[in-house]
Amino acid sequence: MKKLKRSARLVELTQFLLARPHTLIPLTTFAERYGAAKSSISEDLAIIKEVFEEEGMGELQTLAGAAGGVKYIPRVSEERALDIIHKVCGKLEEPGRILPGGYLYMSDLLGQPHLVNEIGDIFATIFGGKNIDVVMTVETKGIPIAYATGAKLNLPVVLVRRDHQVTEGSAVSINYVSGSHKSIHTMTLSRRAMKEKSRVLIVDDFMKAGGTVRGMIDLLAEFNAEVAGVGVLLDSGSVDSEERLFEDYVSLVTLETVDAKNRTVGVKPGNYFEK
Amino acid sequence: MKKLKRSARLVELTQFLLARPHTLIPLTTFAERYGAAKSSISEDLAIIKEVFEEEGMGELQTLAGAAGGVKYIPRVSEERALDIIHKVCGKLEEPGRILPGGYLYMSDLLGQPHLVNEIGDIFATIFGGKNIDVVMTVETKGIPIAYATGAKLNLPVVLVRRDHQVTEGSAVSINYVSGSHKSIHTMTLSRRAMKEKSRVLIVDDFMKAGGTVRGMIDLLAEFNAEVAGVGVLLDSGSVDSEERLFEDYVSLVTLETVDAKNRTVGVKPGNYFEK
Repeated sequence: MKKLKRSARLVELTQFLLARPHTLIPLTTFAERYGAAKSSISEDLAIIKEVFEEEGMGELQTLAGAAGGVKYIPRVSEERALDIIHKVCGKLEEPGRILPGGYLYMSDLLGQPHLVNEIGDIFATIFGGKNIDVVMTVETKGIPIAYATGAKLNLPVVLVRRDHQVTEGSAVSINYVSGSHKSIHTMTLSRRAMKEKSRVLIVDDFMKAGGTVRGMIDLLAEFNAEVAGVGVLLDSGSVDSEERLFEDYVSLVTLETVDAKNRTVGVKPGNYFEK
Repeated sequence: MKKLKRSARLVELTQFLLARPHTLIPLTTFAERYGAAKSSISEDLAIIKEVFEEEGMGELQTLAGAAGGVKYIPRVSEERALDIIHKVCGKLEEPGRILPGGYLYMSDLLGQPHLVNEIGDIFATIFGGKNIDVVMTVETKGIPIAYATGAKLNLPVVLVRRDHQVTEGSAVSINYVSGSHKSIHTMTLSRRAMKEKSRVLIVDDFMKAGGTVRGMIDLLAEFNAEVAGVGVLLDSGSVDSEERLFEDYVSLVTLETVDAKNRTVGVKPGNYFEK
């Protein structure tokens, strides 16, 4: 136990809460940790709560009673989310991103941990109230987004592999049709990676017709698990609705046009921002 | 501009600094942001600095002068690092992790974002002073560790792929011999992923003889880039030094024995903790 002044306690409490999102912390933990009365801790938390709310950083939920405590729920205001996404859109529209075949280079953006964490903050805001057990993605480019989301939701991440790896133990494999090429691929998930009946948030970097997401949903059925939500950073607006293999998802950015000849890209904020 | 009381300013400043590690922030930024005198901000920062140091969370560097400001350098004390690693060792020694072929299942541990972030904190502590431009890893399991490290060092992450992907543009491929199987594999890195002469921190989840790391170093040579450090979560202690393809690396955990018959695993803290 250490005695701290209010000013030091505020710094300590702030970092403690930020490091433990979606975790219920009993007030006695703090009272013992700082050698302070619970009433003082409550006053500290009221100050932090006000700043977090004012800054649009999220909510500090206080639960009364014996099983009570405080829980930090990170949230990004829609205004800040839109700022982040406008920044991403601006980057995506930079010339020189179009690759042969009309593909879009975005590994530089996905290689910025700070930006990826901001994207995770937005997904955590969108899916924070959905009673989720685990975040799932398929290798490779969705992985950092899934971890950023999982970190903010205090949830584990499960990784679907393309091949069955010796380091994963017994696994379930399924075939799926990837909408972009109409070709058949395999994805596998380790038997021990997921409990039966888990509620799963699927996250990925890009979705066109939705074949990969559809594959992950089929895989979930093998585990008697269910989809609690689907979030993709970028979706393609050029897909006909009858071509779409999956409808109920949230996108943060929509790719409207790729003009390979003039090397221009048109993007707009995704369906999350549609009213 | 908003006027804040000291107590609210401390909360705000703490979260602002924690969200921007290894970033120089001029005092005028805060003075303007909070409508406070620079002298008040300096007093606030002194309080935060003391708490951060007391908690073993890192350092608040103050740089005087016109180009001056404050920079938060996250650091984990060796004591806390060892606590984290003992926790990891305990988990790795749990029965039931040994897979056919003597492989160790650790995807459940690597699937915990909170733990992965703690591992990133340790790598950021080890390599924080090394003048690094970029963190590099090869898919798949090292990716979350690389991002956790990059986030804390405020550095981009570059991802080496096993295959050449259409979404990466022109790429450089090399062949390498994986020490575990003595078999030949390919790894590729997008031409535009890395600037010439970058100083690179290589991070991975596991290293046996070091073939994969050796491959990444060979790949760096193609970009006229150089290795600034190599960090792996787990290395294998059962490799002869003449078999080892690479010596100068830091490990956090060392796998000493895998007894596939009795299904037991022996691990100890890695070479970072050796005096």
